[in-house]
Amino acid sequence: MKAYFGRRYLLSASHRLHSDALSAEQNRAIYGKCNNPHGHGHNYVVEVLAGGPVDAETGMVVNMAALDEAVRSRVIERFDHRNLNLDLLFGEVVPTTENLCRAVFDLLEGAIEPAKLVQVRVEETENNFFEYSGARS
Amino acid sequence: MKAYFGRRYLLSASHRLHSDALSAEQNRAIYGKCNNPHGHGHNYVVEVLAGGPVDAETGMVVNMAALDEAVRSRVIERFDHRNLNLDLLFGEVVPTTENLCRAVFDLLEGAIEPAKLVQVRVEETENNFFEYSGARS
Amino acid sequence: MKAYFGRRYLLSASHRLHSDALSAEQNRAIYGKCNNPHGHGHNYVVEVLAGGPVDAETGMVVNMAALDEAVRSRVIERFDHRNLNLDLLFGEVVPTTENLCRAVFDLLEGAIEPAKLVQVRVEETENNFFEYSGARS
Amino acid sequence: MKAYFGRRYLLSASHRLHSDALSAEQNRAIYGKCNNPHGHGHNYVVEVLAGGPVDAETGMVVNMAALDEAVRSRVIERFDHRNLNLDLLFGEVVPTTENLCRAVFDLLEGAIEPAKLVQVRVEETENNFFEYSGARS
Amino acid sequence: MKAYFGRRYLLSASHRLHSDALSAEQNRAIYGKCNNPHGHGHNYVVEVLAGGPVDAETGMVVNMAALDEAVRSRVIERFDHRNLNLDLLFGEVVPTTENLCRAVFDLLEGAIEPAKLVQVRVEETENNFFEYSGARS
Amino acid sequence: MKAYFGRRYLLSASHRLHSDALSAEQNRAIYGKCNNPHGHGHNYVVEVLAGGPVDAETGMVVNMAALDEAVRSRVIERFDHRNLNLDLLFGEVVPTTENLCRAVFDLLEGAIEPAKLVQVRVEETENNFFEYSGARS
Repeated sequence: MKAYFGRRYLLSASHRLHSDALSAEQNRAIYGKCNNPHGHGHNYVVEVLAGGPVDAETGMVVNMAALDEAVRSRVIERFDHRNLNLDLLFGEVVPTTENLCRAVFDLLEGAIEPAKLVQVRVEETENNFFEYSGARS
Repeated sequence: MKAYFGRRYLLSASHRLHSDALSAEQNRAIYGKCNNPHGHGHNYVVEVLAGGPVDAETGMVVNMAALDEAVRSRVIERFDHRNLNLDLLFGEVVPTTENLCRAVFDLLEGAIEPAKLVQVRVEETENNFFEYSGARS
Repeated sequence: MKAYFGRRYLLSASHRLHSDALSAEQNRAIYGKCNNPHGHGHNYVVEVLAGGPVDAETGMVVNMAALDEAVRSRVIERFDHRNLNLDLLFGEVVPTTENLCRAVFDLLEGAIEPAKLVQVRVEETENNFFEYSGARS
Repeated sequence: MKAYFGRRYLLSASHRLHSDALSAEQNRAIYGKCNNPHGHGHNYVVEVLAGGPVDAETGMVVNMAALDEAVRSRVIERFDHRNLNLDLLFGEVVPTTENLCRAVFDLLEGAIEPAKLVQVRVEETENNFFEYSGARS
Repeated sequence: MKAYFGRRYLLSASHRLHSDALSAEQNRAIYGKCNNPHGHGHNYVVEVLAGGPVDAETGMVVNMAALDEAVRSRVIERFDHRNLNLDLLFGEVVPTTENLCRAVFDLLEGAIEPAKLVQVRVEETENNFFEYSGARS
Repeated sequence: MKAYFGRRYLLSASHRLHSDALSAEQNRAIYGKCNNPHGHGHNYVVEVLAGGPVDAETGMVVNMAALDEAVRSRVIERFDHRNLNLDLLFGEVVPTTENLCRAVFDLLEGAIEPAKLVQVRVEETENNFFEYSGARS
């Protein structure tokens, strides 16, 4: 499996980095201004990478319309224009972008067959990003 | 005056578009998902455009370090990693990006002399932006 | 009127630069490889700039959903995934990006009131763009 | 081998997604507006990734001028400002971007020695891309 | 005159900001690390904006090949892969990007007729840029 | 280990590609205009990729403030606004971007524990980049 198809999606959401398992001082020390009490937000860029053979008849790795529908119904509907803390989307888990990235991967895994979900990348700002991936072989 | 210096700054903040002067239905109709109760957020790109003659001795329109300090103390400190509604930064005014753009202009006007503040541009996402400007002559 | 709202839209289309009023040699000399017989294509970025006062109640220059609908029905439906020559969208006029830019301006003028259509910008590639505008005052 | 050199090239071309092995309805269902009869086009960004040891004397993985010449003569000359269907560049194969990506890889493999061609990436629009690669070890 | 054509060019050059009319301390205070003795460098993006009527026959504001040749021979040849100080390109003038921008404008003015040179924009980094312009009317 | 955190940093520096082990003609043939006697410069984008498990308590792969401090003190302070040749940062080694990339990797390896430094990528211009990496497993 050596062909990959990647597609970008945009999400605007807000979050606050705060762990109930830590003291107020620890939260401030670890998360800095990301711990500000009323939160802040980002335009997240979610990039989904699918891999598989190029279909001999259609010339495609994955049907883009089907991928878009899977991402819309499972990811965009869930996270776009939401507050990752107050809308209770992450339960006990701190809604860092690492955890958002992992959540997107888990929500999409198995949903784009016969293609394989290879990696999810989330850009939090133009200067930092996160990647979560299965083995790329 | 025909030379301009522009500089980009990044802000991450959250907001909710909601007007107390409107009914719940009107708010939903006008603002759509931007009216979701717990808000959402953006990476705002704030671009400040300064104009003036090129100083014959220094070759500069405006001293960049002085501009950075003005923007940091008046704009970044105020809005970065904040919630534009709950941190009470806009009073009765709906914190649309139009109004954020105008607020940045007002906070910086007169603060970068002898250069003139020509325009403030705020990109809300990679697909939309706002500009507020004095006359560019 | 000093506040502006700009929004980007994407169009994929093909075109061939060829004028029936010119000889084959003239066409080749003026348009170069853009005159290749079967055409080529671009991802056009169409940026619409609307201007007007910021509404005191809503805090907006123009309703984004209404703008999106005007652009979708008048511009995207017409040009996206089309061949600007063979789909007969430009009649006798050569479908240069200058003329595409002007056509978009004409199709949108008057359609986003009370805001004013200030300028249309079309990026043909990451290295060149065209702007067509009414007076920006 | 752990050092890589990547370089971007731009191509403007048009294509129509249509398989003669499928009915008109099937073509429309699978390819959507990409099946429009007169085609459309893109600014393809072709990114070539070469790998190999850093030469101790020159400090380079691959000579950039030699790479540019290989890409120009084998890829740009062939595909730039062309119609991927009507210029008969893909024979029976549907000119999806997956297949374009694979064709670029095949055209360059072995042509940049002693460096190894590691991967070809083709961006079709700012929102989707394809990668075709040998094993990256 | 309401149609504009813009085109981007890349230049890599080095410079040191230092004025012989100032003391060492003044130079350091005004220019900061840009005054470091051996200089530094940038990938300058030079954007040339030409304006004029859209030619009724060709559909173009300016012939792109002619513009490219004017920029290549007058600007790229002069500044690309050069040291703006040691290659003595600016004489007594400090090679700030403001002055580079003005120099590019002066070198191109009158060279792209019948189109009019409307503005030159030089991006020094992704975070700052300079514009020098004639009246845009 | 399947989670990664990447972060971008900007460096402006100048360099000249020239090897004392080669003749003047050889230098000119291999490096072209990059061998111009007084050098030139770039805005280097340095992207650092760290990998490791997502900490169950903090939700982070690596503390961003700690990473920023390591990069600032070891890389930015050393290379930013410097001349890679005349400031004697590379000794006998030609300061190609391949070698800069490798130097950044060596300076950061072991400095961001418990996360692992997975890869350093340096973009020299918007059209070319280099990557140097440990095994990504």
